[in-house]
Amino acid sequence: MPEISKRGQLMPSSPIRRLVPLAESAARRGCHVFRLNIGQPDLLTSPNALEAIRNIGTNIIEYGHSAGNESLRRKFADFYKKIGVNLDYQDILVTTGGSEAITFALLACLNSGDEIIVPEPFYANYLSFAIAADVTVIPVTSFIENGFALPPVAEFEKKITPRTRAVLICNPNNPTGYLYSWSELEQIRDLAIKHNLFFLCDEVYRELSYDSKSVKSSMLLEGVDEHLVLLDSVSKRYSATGLRVGVIASRNRELIATALKFGQARLCPPNIGQLAAEAALDSPPEYNDYIFNEFLERRNYLVKALNDIPGVVCPTPKGAFYTMVKLPVDDAEKFAMWLLQEFEYNRQTVMLAPGSGFYKTPGLGKQEVRIAYVLKIDDLQNAMECLKRGLEDYPGRSSK
Amino acid sequence: MPEISKRGQLMPSSPIRRLVPLAESAARRGCHVFRLNIGQPDLLTSPNALEAIRNIGTNIIEYGHSAGNESLRRKFADFYKKIGVNLDYQDILVTTGGSEAITFALLACLNSGDEIIVPEPFYANYLSFAIAADVTVIPVTSFIENGFALPPVAEFEKKITPRTRAVLICNPNNPTGYLYSWSELEQIRDLAIKHNLFFLCDEVYRELSYDSKSVKSSMLLEGVDEHLVLLDSVSKRYSATGLRVGVIASRNRELIATALKFGQARLCPPNIGQLAAEAALDSPPEYNDYIFNEFLERRNYLVKALNDIPGVVCPTPKGAFYTMVKLPVDDAEKFAMWLLQEFEYNRQTVMLAPGSGFYKTPGLGKQEVRIAYVLKIDDLQNAMECLKRGLEDYPGRSSK
Repeated sequence: MPEISKRGQLMPSSPIRRLVPLAESAARRGCHVFRLNIGQPDLLTSPNALEAIRNIGTNIIEYGHSAGNESLRRKFADFYKKIGVNLDYQDILVTTGGSEAITFALLACLNSGDEIIVPEPFYANYLSFAIAADVTVIPVTSFIENGFALPPVAEFEKKITPRTRAVLICNPNNPTGYLYSWSELEQIRDLAIKHNLFFLCDEVYRELSYDSKSVKSSMLLEGVDEHLVLLDSVSKRYSATGLRVGVIASRNRELIATALKFGQARLCPPNIGQLAAEAALDSPPEYNDYIFNEFLERRNYLVKALNDIPGVVCPTPKGAFYTMVKLPVDDAEKFAMWLLQEFEYNRQTVMLAPGSGFYKTPGLGKQEVRIAYVLKIDDLQNAMECLKRGLEDYPGRSSK
Repeated sequence: MPEISKRGQLMPSSPIRRLVPLAESAARRGCHVFRLNIGQPDLLTSPNALEAIRNIGTNIIEYGHSAGNESLRRKFADFYKKIGVNLDYQDILVTTGGSEAITFALLACLNSGDEIIVPEPFYANYLSFAIAADVTVIPVTSFIENGFALPPVAEFEKKITPRTRAVLICNPNNPTGYLYSWSELEQIRDLAIKHNLFFLCDEVYRELSYDSKSVKSSMLLEGVDEHLVLLDSVSKRYSATGLRVGVIASRNRELIATALKFGQARLCPPNIGQLAAEAALDSPPEYNDYIFNEFLERRNYLVKALNDIPGVVCPTPKGAFYTMVKLPVDDAEKFAMWLLQEFEYNRQTVMLAPGSGFYKTPGLGKQEVRIAYVLKIDDLQNAMECLKRGLEDYPGRSSK
């Protein structure tokens, strides 16, 4: 029997995934599970997108252009212009979700064996994309004590080796909800210039920035055009995760030409998704407000509810729809399993994402969980009641 | 300025792509270009697929399962059962087009630096996927003189090294249209067993087998379950290339579990595409006959028309919708460029795919082109008239 590849064996199976069968089993025994573990909101998809799908005009669903349909690329350029970011449509490639944007960036910027520095905790799939691309994620730890602010640049510099080729941040951050300040972005810019690194910025949650509705994209940084790579997606902004339409953009034309070659190999991004995304980008302000206000209200409710539970520490996330929370437990993964296997309150329980899955450094995040506020406030209320009672009953409660 | 990765620099820009601006320029000067260079048929997408899209019921386009939606996986299992292939739905993963199926297979079966043997000429994007996955395609040459039959197994064995991990065939073949015989498939099976290799079989064109409508999938081979990997797609069968829905299937559960880990990283295949594909798999027999008969008629017309042109050699392809043709020219790429730049007949010309792009061995295919019979017979007739006149006028005509 031929052997599976080493990289296949190395691909992580995240703690979230280990919980899935437990949640299914809880559901089977009649216990409702509030799923706060993944970024699948219950909000309505942009009606523009749905209408475009229902009114599809063509009778032949053809390949689109490998770079994405030009009309969609131009629409993205207009979209970015509205937030002050000047990008020519030729700087923008449409990808199969933000996922493919990350993969193309890794393939175009890094060789096999090269290194990319990422503040941890980070979006767990970065690690998987890195393994697939045969590159190494080098973590720089951020801490819940200061709300997961950017670690000092000196910490990044300690990790730089001759193989370092890029820095990657997610802003606003998944999983922490942290919103990098302009000064922090400038620090990374200076680091990228000093060490000649690509600066990849995953801005999938950009429009969910709660301090003000005015968004500050990394693409506004000056003097770093050849380094900056924007990774984006319509998934969260229009509650349309299943479309699989994202973006990789850069003013570095050589980089975009290279990403396009990877794009040509896979022919084109999903074409119905592109049709829907193009319509979504024209969503009325009321829709955008609906998304923004829903998440803002949920965040405000959730952060207060969490901090009201004795022993729970939850910094106030300023963006995205996640928060990393410290729980008074011996081991958050064990607790998450216990909630699904042995606990229920009013025939309800909660599914949480264990924090350790978002750290690369072994041992970190053991008392943390990521909570996605993707359910309506009624559900969040019940979920918080479950969490509170669960923490009271959990035998592995810690006093720390 | 940070440097683009070596693999990015290595990614090929195929001769087909070099022709695109020339075709655009011909169109701008008012010359109609018959595009026989790519596999984009003009046939109608399955009406079932279109209806499913128009009647989409949900108001939230959510992530699907990373393995593909279970209902679609079960539908694929039923589909394969109808051609005698027993696969559990759990042996089947839905991918973002056949393209992603190839990528997952390479990532799961081969390490960086490993080798995969592929008969040439081969689908040009195999090379791109291999570069992205950091593996090496080792070609074994097949020849137009015997219709691109499988090269002798001894030729494969000469290429086997300690790094060889897999053999890949496309059956029916793109670009040659060759349909491997059962005995040829058995030879590859025996080779895979003897040398402990994975046997990847790209059957995207399976239902377009013109000798008989009864299809013989490699998945019917016995004694090789742990080696066999099926790569498939709904793109061609239902004329729905833009959906981006494919399949990787294997009875090797470890391989499927590994491919799923790569699939989990990218969250899910496009969900509207999955909805449409599931409906397409229920297309009525009349639709399937329409596709089959259209291509059969076009093939019959085209092969005769080509062989009627003095100096042109075209074996009869028994499957898919391509044929590799030998032309009496000095250099088929130069000729293809000349057709777009300097030739027209009745304000029309033809776009052909130069053969060299389908070979890895330098110098091969120089007199060959791939022709995709993706246009209706009226158009093919005009295209053949152009080709004939073009060959008469071309200054680089060769007598060979």
